[in-house]
Amino acid sequence: MSSEFDFIRRIRQKTLQNPSVLLGPGDDTAILQPIQSDLLVTTDMLLEGSCFLINEAGPFRVGRKAMNVNISDIAAMAGVPLAAVVSVGLPHGASADLADQLDAGLRDAAAVFDVALVGGDTNSWKGPLCISVTLIGKVEGYAVRRSGAEIGDWIFVTGALGGSILKHHLDFVPRVREARHVAGLVKLKSMIDISDGLAKDLWHICEESGVGAMLDAESIPITPDAHELAKTGSKTPLQHALHDGEDFELIFTVSAEDGKRLQEARLDFAVTKIGEITKEGYTIRENGVTRVLEAKGYEHVW
Amino acid sequence: MSSEFDFIRRIRQKTLQNPSVLLGPGDDTAILQPIQSDLLVTTDMLLEGSCFLINEAGPFRVGRKAMNVNISDIAAMAGVPLAAVVSVGLPHGASADLADQLDAGLRDAAAVFDVALVGGDTNSWKGPLCISVTLIGKVEGYAVRRSGAEIGDWIFVTGALGGSILKHHLDFVPRVREARHVAGLVKLKSMIDISDGLAKDLWHICEESGVGAMLDAESIPITPDAHELAKTGSKTPLQHALHDGEDFELIFTVSAEDGKRLQEARLDFAVTKIGEITKEGYTIRENGVTRVLEAKGYEHVW
Repeated sequence: MSSEFDFIRRIRQKTLQNPSVLLGPGDDTAILQPIQSDLLVTTDMLLEGSCFLINEAGPFRVGRKAMNVNISDIAAMAGVPLAAVVSVGLPHGASADLADQLDAGLRDAAAVFDVALVGGDTNSWKGPLCISVTLIGKVEGYAVRRSGAEIGDWIFVTGALGGSILKHHLDFVPRVREARHVAGLVKLKSMIDISDGLAKDLWHICEESGVGAMLDAESIPITPDAHELAKTGSKTPLQHALHDGEDFELIFTVSAEDGKRLQEARLDFAVTKIGEITKEGYTIRENGVTRVLEAKGYEHVW
Repeated sequence: MSSEFDFIRRIRQKTLQNPSVLLGPGDDTAILQPIQSDLLVTTDMLLEGSCFLINEAGPFRVGRKAMNVNISDIAAMAGVPLAAVVSVGLPHGASADLADQLDAGLRDAAAVFDVALVGGDTNSWKGPLCISVTLIGKVEGYAVRRSGAEIGDWIFVTGALGGSILKHHLDFVPRVREARHVAGLVKLKSMIDISDGLAKDLWHICEESGVGAMLDAESIPITPDAHELAKTGSKTPLQHALHDGEDFELIFTVSAEDGKRLQEARLDFAVTKIGEITKEGYTIRENGVTRVLEAKGYEHVW
């Protein structure tokens, strides 16, 4: 409830001195200075057993992931993250060390992007660990939506895809800097971060934009971890890259002209053209054969 | 995670057309128009077994309470609630009816104060029902903090206190309207909403303001429910009024001059002077005897 427990007090005391944030010391409600641009608001909840295994991940990485999945949502709009609130349900009997490590993980992720932790709510209960972060950001320049893709756009992706279950889903750095940089170089027409897998998340762009897409299998960047998984499992590296979830890379579309400009730009991070937006259909071409791409991905336990 | 599940889609489609809110249809992140005044941000999580019993309360009232505890935090700053995001962990096997009723309860509470539901995150998991709401509001005029009480201030409370466990903790209406009205009539110097009980929450004001308080037992307004509970339990009605939690009434302090003005004002809701801010000490006077007031209240399960 609205009590001020130590966990949140500690967060507030240690929070970054973001100049746009006034902390309400001891108040349940934080006061932020007026934000002159459009405001972005996103929330994501992580649940033990569905989104992480606490014994495998450890509380530090859980805290960091809880913050980073939200920062990734702001990155997907090419926004700038500003301030976050955190609510936590700790299992009865959870150790002080668990709370400490969660706290440290949240702050670690927030510090990378100067996000101020401005408040929250800590509870103890009979259930497993649950943690919900709400992140407020701002638009600088323009916000990029899922719905802006147009026929002939080139489809790009940051980084490489697949196999995040091995470690990347806990250790990724949200692509805020990359999104801001690309948004400054060219006109981003649509964008999404990959939480459900390339095939499923690109489908969201197509659905919202009323268009189709054709991917070029050979050009999709695949991680070493996807290759690693393919050695022992039943899926190919490409299948991992297409359908694994939680890459937290960005898929975006730009005009062909902007696409060429981007390919010629000197970037210190990877962006790769993986296909084009079409009038209709949802396909992938591999070894000269075009087949329908299934818009399936990682289904969060439901 | 960042998937768009039906629950949240439904909320968005049904959401109020608050003019200051641009919904991002299909985006994980909502876009709000710039807010020209100071921004308020608060979050509260409700957990089954700690904050409610689902079989007793029913999901409609749980949804409503989850929204209203946050609205009450904004009321406690004399703020105006604007937009909310909701994250939910539904137990595996939860019925569609449960989600429907939660949704209806959230919307019911939001509608009373024109709060737009702008997004969220729905998950299913092995744990009990958990629900976290983050509410964004704005300051109109001035924000009232806990830290502004001064020696000689009169202490007021809205409504009547105690016995909320019987029903009020699920059915209260946050005191947004009352706070706004009083803030317009007089200068509110400090304020808090009662979630942990009068004795404990007034103590927060004293602690943050560096002052003491003396209450007048006879003037504390007590609910019929507190009297009802006292008949069968071991506590007096006054003890219920002092120490029960979740009244969600407001405690506030004003100068003596403003206090008189408030007592003379024609209000269509109850505000009652219950004591005065002192230099130090934390006491209550009952039947001519002054004793130390324990700053204990309802301890949320911890």
